[in-house]
Amino acid sequence: MKKVIALMTDFGLRDAFVASMKGVILSICPDANIVDLSHEVDSFDVLHGALLLSSSAKFFPDGTIFVGVVDPGVGTERRGIVVETKRHVAVGPDNGLFSLLMEKEGVVGVYEIRNKSLLLDLPFETFHGLTVFSPVAAHIANGLPPSSAGPKISDYVKMPLPRVQVRGSKIVAEALHVDRFGNIITNVSTEDIHSLGLKRGTLLRAETEGGTVEAPLEKSYGYVPTGSFVFVLDSYGFLELAVNQGNAAKLLGLKRGSPIEITVLK
Amino acid sequence: MKKVIALMTDFGLRDAFVASMKGVILSICPDANIVDLSHEVDSFDVLHGALLLSSSAKFFPDGTIFVGVVDPGVGTERRGIVVETKRHVAVGPDNGLFSLLMEKEGVVGVYEIRNKSLLLDLPFETFHGLTVFSPVAAHIANGLPPSSAGPKISDYVKMPLPRVQVRGSKIVAEALHVDRFGNIITNVSTEDIHSLGLKRGTLLRAETEGGTVEAPLEKSYGYVPTGSFVFVLDSYGFLELAVNQGNAAKLLGLKRGSPIEITVLK
Amino acid sequence: MKKVIALMTDFGLRDAFVASMKGVILSICPDANIVDLSHEVDSFDVLHGALLLSSSAKFFPDGTIFVGVVDPGVGTERRGIVVETKRHVAVGPDNGLFSLLMEKEGVVGVYEIRNKSLLLDLPFETFHGLTVFSPVAAHIANGLPPSSAGPKISDYVKMPLPRVQVRGSKIVAEALHVDRFGNIITNVSTEDIHSLGLKRGTLLRAETEGGTVEAPLEKSYGYVPTGSFVFVLDSYGFLELAVNQGNAAKLLGLKRGSPIEITVLK
Repeated sequence: MKKVIALMTDFGLRDAFVASMKGVILSICPDANIVDLSHEVDSFDVLHGALLLSSSAKFFPDGTIFVGVVDPGVGTERRGIVVETKRHVAVGPDNGLFSLLMEKEGVVGVYEIRNKSLLLDLPFETFHGLTVFSPVAAHIANGLPPSSAGPKISDYVKMPLPRVQVRGSKIVAEALHVDRFGNIITNVSTEDIHSLGLKRGTLLRAETEGGTVEAPLEKSYGYVPTGSFVFVLDSYGFLELAVNQGNAAKLLGLKRGSPIEITVLK
Repeated sequence: MKKVIALMTDFGLRDAFVASMKGVILSICPDANIVDLSHEVDSFDVLHGALLLSSSAKFFPDGTIFVGVVDPGVGTERRGIVVETKRHVAVGPDNGLFSLLMEKEGVVGVYEIRNKSLLLDLPFETFHGLTVFSPVAAHIANGLPPSSAGPKISDYVKMPLPRVQVRGSKIVAEALHVDRFGNIITNVSTEDIHSLGLKRGTLLRAETEGGTVEAPLEKSYGYVPTGSFVFVLDSYGFLELAVNQGNAAKLLGLKRGSPIEITVLK
Repeated sequence: MKKVIALMTDFGLRDAFVASMKGVILSICPDANIVDLSHEVDSFDVLHGALLLSSSAKFFPDGTIFVGVVDPGVGTERRGIVVETKRHVAVGPDNGLFSLLMEKEGVVGVYEIRNKSLLLDLPFETFHGLTVFSPVAAHIANGLPPSSAGPKISDYVKMPLPRVQVRGSKIVAEALHVDRFGNIITNVSTEDIHSLGLKRGTLLRAETEGGTVEAPLEKSYGYVPTGSFVFVLDSYGFLELAVNQGNAAKLLGLKRGSPIEITVLK
């Protein structure tokens, strides 16, 4: 069976970056099944990348190798790492991009990439996606154990998600991400939802910079009339505030990081 | 030979949606040859998706499985279906997205997805592309007959293309789609062109909201001078109004749905 | 081992063009490993495509077949060609799109596509990517020798890069490309850098329409403080003017073609 190597970057596709990475991978591991996860991560936005990766990784087969490149610190002392979780391997910069993945899947080991024999020897250090992360991933796809990349480390960068706070009857949350449809993904996790006893039909109030709305928690958008607000537990694994066939973020003027205070009305 | 599963959505690639679907498919059918058809269908625009799918499907090998997700009604009573045509299989919402495909290829059977053993059991109904359509397609790629998805139905949603009308010497048409280059794809089909006796060199007049132009029907753009209007029969299978190395839609201020009245001048 | 066919176009993904090409390729060569190089080449911008292709091709395995479609002259007398370099094969229009590739890799032969038995017989000439280039590439992936496409030619279109000029102590250069991050890729090549004796740490002055900046040549962006200008030798193989975690092109108001005069300050 061909090894899946899934790529996620903030490079877009107007440049030669992603294409070059694919070339390197196929040169080392011709049988790799290269899958584009996304190349539209917001530039230098490590949290956006971490969220996208950890949300989609759970659906990928065991053994999938992820290459993640959202790397504002490229070419500095920032380390490169190989992360081995209980299900997957991830290769990329040590800047927190894999924090959520590790939190969700459980860490087996994190290895600093030091084994120079695995790397491409090129006269620039502007693009570790090409010279470091792609070749290491391709060698792992060929059977190299992740630990061969270099020494095991424990002081890798952790970037935890902003946690919700419960103040009296209010859940103080924020917008983690706004998706293509203007749905607002909050940082209220599935676990939070369970521990708060939220159920289908529970009526919630959201106080935001752009106004206050009341909406029920439903299994999908279509359970409220077109144009109405609705809360759902979404495929990212978080509580989401949406408008059925509308754009919640635009209507409320919210963006990533905007505070959202949620009250359970029952 | 690996089974081709071709994906078309309106999800874009900034979110985890498409990546997650690929993960689900590879988890069920590790040998699937996943091909990205497009993830840039205009949001909730079922006609755009139907046109894109039916225009490209004809070039795909027999047995290709298409997953199409343009799904404003997700999570409501809107059914999910598997469509078996004489050449292909398509999986997605029952909202007309596969109407043109069925019209062009001929229907063998349409099955409502009811077989819950094929689906992902997840606590949300916001994303049937993930929990319903991707797993069903992957199981079909593994050899499951389309009819195993559920009961055969005949009352699926039909969404016919707007037909042209002939009024005297005028063909009353409209813009079906404006492509990246500003070429205007009309709803005058190849069959219409033949029945109207249009031939290479025929001079046509187009009256539009943005002005009236006269242009010949040619085999390609380059047969008229740079900057001149030209009609072609295009790869979508329709009569197209274009400007050689220019942007016809911008010059005429037309968009999808704009009326176009065409007169044959000979 | 499956044959890699890498696609580069200026079609974007909102239309059916790229999907249709993939269908044609898989119909002829079901085992092809189709890789998306980029479909975001600027419309009709042959130089952008030539740069993207030649920069990424060097990382692809020997034997890779590239299909390149940036083709303002489609449907005219403009010829279609198959290019055989010492490492790769490229199929597309004879308009200079493969000039840089040939310059870098060395030409074995260029063949005009004349063998009609290889082509799709369809009633339009608007889209040679579909009817000519994709099927020819797929047949070559199936083992057809490139020379079977048609007669060998030597009068193919050459589109050399604009060369730098050295005037006294000044290197008169220009912006070849601005990447997603606003980094300015100049036409000062790796060879120029060596012949000018530029080394890591060399201080350079760049005079541009948007102002004059002084910056060192470093191995990566992170060697200067955040917000500072820096020169690097980049993965495109050219001297690049960048701002660490900033947008050099925006700061200087430069775009493709903007002149840049460089003085070595030591």
